[in-house]
Amino acid sequence: MATSSATIAAVVKAVREDRLWQRHMDLANIGATGRGGVNRQALTPEDAEARLRVLAWAATRGFSPSVDAIGNVFIRRPGTDPTASPVVAGSHLDTQPTGGNFDGVYGVLAAFEVLEAASDAGVTTDRPLEAVVWTNEEGARFQPTTMGSAVFAGALPLETALATTDTAGVSVAQALAETMQRLAIPQRRAFRCPMAVYLEAHIEQGPLLETTHHTIGIVSGIQGLRWFRVEVTGEEAHAGTTPRRIRKDAFVAAVRMVTALQELLYDSADTVRFTVGRFEVTPNSPNTVPGRVLFTIDLRHPQAEVLSRLGDQIEALCRAQAHDCSVVVTETLSSPPVEFDPAIRAWLTQSAARQALAHMDIVSGATHDAKYMADLYPSGMLFVPCRGGISHNEAEYAAPADLAAGTRILAEVMLTLAHH
Amino acid sequence: MATSSATIAAVVKAVREDRLWQRHMDLANIGATGRGGVNRQALTPEDAEARLRVLAWAATRGFSPSVDAIGNVFIRRPGTDPTASPVVAGSHLDTQPTGGNFDGVYGVLAAFEVLEAASDAGVTTDRPLEAVVWTNEEGARFQPTTMGSAVFAGALPLETALATTDTAGVSVAQALAETMQRLAIPQRRAFRCPMAVYLEAHIEQGPLLETTHHTIGIVSGIQGLRWFRVEVTGEEAHAGTTPRRIRKDAFVAAVRMVTALQELLYDSADTVRFTVGRFEVTPNSPNTVPGRVLFTIDLRHPQAEVLSRLGDQIEALCRAQAHDCSVVVTETLSSPPVEFDPAIRAWLTQSAARQALAHMDIVSGATHDAKYMADLYPSGMLFVPCRGGISHNEAEYAAPADLAAGTRILAEVMLTLAHH
Repeated sequence: MATSSATIAAVVKAVREDRLWQRHMDLANIGATGRGGVNRQALTPEDAEARLRVLAWAATRGFSPSVDAIGNVFIRRPGTDPTASPVVAGSHLDTQPTGGNFDGVYGVLAAFEVLEAASDAGVTTDRPLEAVVWTNEEGARFQPTTMGSAVFAGALPLETALATTDTAGVSVAQALAETMQRLAIPQRRAFRCPMAVYLEAHIEQGPLLETTHHTIGIVSGIQGLRWFRVEVTGEEAHAGTTPRRIRKDAFVAAVRMVTALQELLYDSADTVRFTVGRFEVTPNSPNTVPGRVLFTIDLRHPQAEVLSRLGDQIEALCRAQAHDCSVVVTETLSSPPVEFDPAIRAWLTQSAARQALAHMDIVSGATHDAKYMADLYPSGMLFVPCRGGISHNEAEYAAPADLAAGTRILAEVMLTLAHH
Repeated sequence: MATSSATIAAVVKAVREDRLWQRHMDLANIGATGRGGVNRQALTPEDAEARLRVLAWAATRGFSPSVDAIGNVFIRRPGTDPTASPVVAGSHLDTQPTGGNFDGVYGVLAAFEVLEAASDAGVTTDRPLEAVVWTNEEGARFQPTTMGSAVFAGALPLETALATTDTAGVSVAQALAETMQRLAIPQRRAFRCPMAVYLEAHIEQGPLLETTHHTIGIVSGIQGLRWFRVEVTGEEAHAGTTPRRIRKDAFVAAVRMVTALQELLYDSADTVRFTVGRFEVTPNSPNTVPGRVLFTIDLRHPQAEVLSRLGDQIEALCRAQAHDCSVVVTETLSSPPVEFDPAIRAWLTQSAARQALAHMDIVSGATHDAKYMADLYPSGMLFVPCRGGISHNEAEYAAPADLAAGTRILAEVMLTLAHH
């Protein structure tokens, strides 16, 4: 049964900005820091309480929950075809220690709002509609980030995840058991179960939409990332007595390397992301020529080929600039770029155009649970603006109207794809 | 009475390398760290013990001690003219916490060796010959450095020095009282008492003499020093989501400043000393664009005019390179250059030539007690090589033959000037 555009429009119209905002404010109370943000780290009592709140809302609407072995929670609004795979959207409810009220939360609540709007509009779909809550996206208490979606997708062994401990020595297995007991969801869900499509709405966590006055970002992909640690070794010397020509100044060598890297990685289109975020000098005394510098390189690009080509030049460049010092370059992290399904991107773009919302293509600078879904299912993401581009911060803020606008796009695309 | 060159030569000949070396090794036992160095910080029991050892040697030779109100100890070998001001040489016996066996110690023992050699040679002088032990040259336990000579010269008020405390809260007044009690020197010495000349022998604490194969450095002066603290403020941002053109990256701005400073302060003659020794990034996280950088500038030059001209350009240069960041430049220390008396330098040079020792003019990169004497009396310094230029380090080493060579120059000049 094809859904008429009138039916889809009815669901879009049933999306309620006030309800969506109220749900954000309700969850903002759970783990509230008292300074406008939340501390709701993964698999804590607060995390369980936020999930229970969403489950309670689901129960009042008759939606049915299931949970997998890493604690990812799926809330289902059934379709008419019992054999059809679901249309799924979601994100996460855990936060950074001084996190905000929108990162992750929005993706879960937008998906849940679509389920509610479909019910309010009295619309039936062929495929089930599902909202998913992924476990431990932030990686603040337990590393790595996006743990739940990685385990679900088979990119991280369940046993490895369960054995991970926090700084207090508590394992994921222990914390998860407590959370599972509180959630008390009888229905189990298998890893890598079929999905027709996976969608994720998220705040941008960057400034582009706001500064260019766009309401919707159609996410083309997630940047690839390479991290390097550069250790420069020279020789400590007295700043007053040692002439320049016989110094082995690790700081001077490191500055030469950074300057050469800036040249190598300069990109007039401003797509390459290059950051030296950590830079440490030893012994760090005003009148001693530095004997050692350690610095990090964070390099990101949406295209795998460019990321490879640029990243592969870093070690040779640092060696060439070391002169009388020695240098060791170590790659500490590598995450290839993700490109989202072109058909999904097209659906999102068409919907934004139809709803007359200012939209632009955008690359996600941060990673998301959608990264792992993109390996398994047709997947896509949409962004809404966040004030000042600020995220992972108690000052994080997104406007109610923007949250609703993104949810209406999500509703249109989910409903469109929920029919054969 | 003019001294004949034969008499002077007899004293020079009486300088004993073995005794001088043995005295160094004796003092190396006091506060020995067990790793080849010493920890004999100012006004500790170890410092008192080292002074007592020298006083004991003085007593066996009949030399008479006196002490001033900051604990500087003067050991006098009388002259024949009771009204004549003395010819003084010396340095200090206190060390860094992981100090060596030569820095300071050599200057005291070389002067003492000259007094002993004069006695061994049976020579009388018109003027008294004196060896001085300055209190707290290192500034490791109590700041500032060169405390004893500064108080003696009137550059630092006695009350200020006495009120200074160490990290345990012990004041100079308390520590000095204990030292004075142990030394038990009845004879008091006034600050700024007349001296005919002040001389100081010291290890170079730099690599020039060794690398150029010179035994004696005729010190032309002590470099002037200016310290600056530069605080760059930008804005923290997410390394993945923030494009280069809207970043306010404090690290990038600081690197621009450092690069421009290197250009400004480049000097093909390699006389300018420019060091960025401390450089701190906040928040110092690999995936966060730095919001703040603090770095220091240590700038030195032997000529006051050059030091003024270069240092005065630093703030404007940093401002010009700040771009979207802000910068605050603070001068935290300023010490003008010292030029030693040309006549004294000439005496030292002539003596080195006469004794056929390879010698060169050299600027002292570090400060010394002679800095304050140069304001009051005709003053001069000579350097001998130290291995690898290493100092303020337990590995500090100077060869016995070099120590003796420097002492023979000191003997010749002291004896020459000890006569009317």
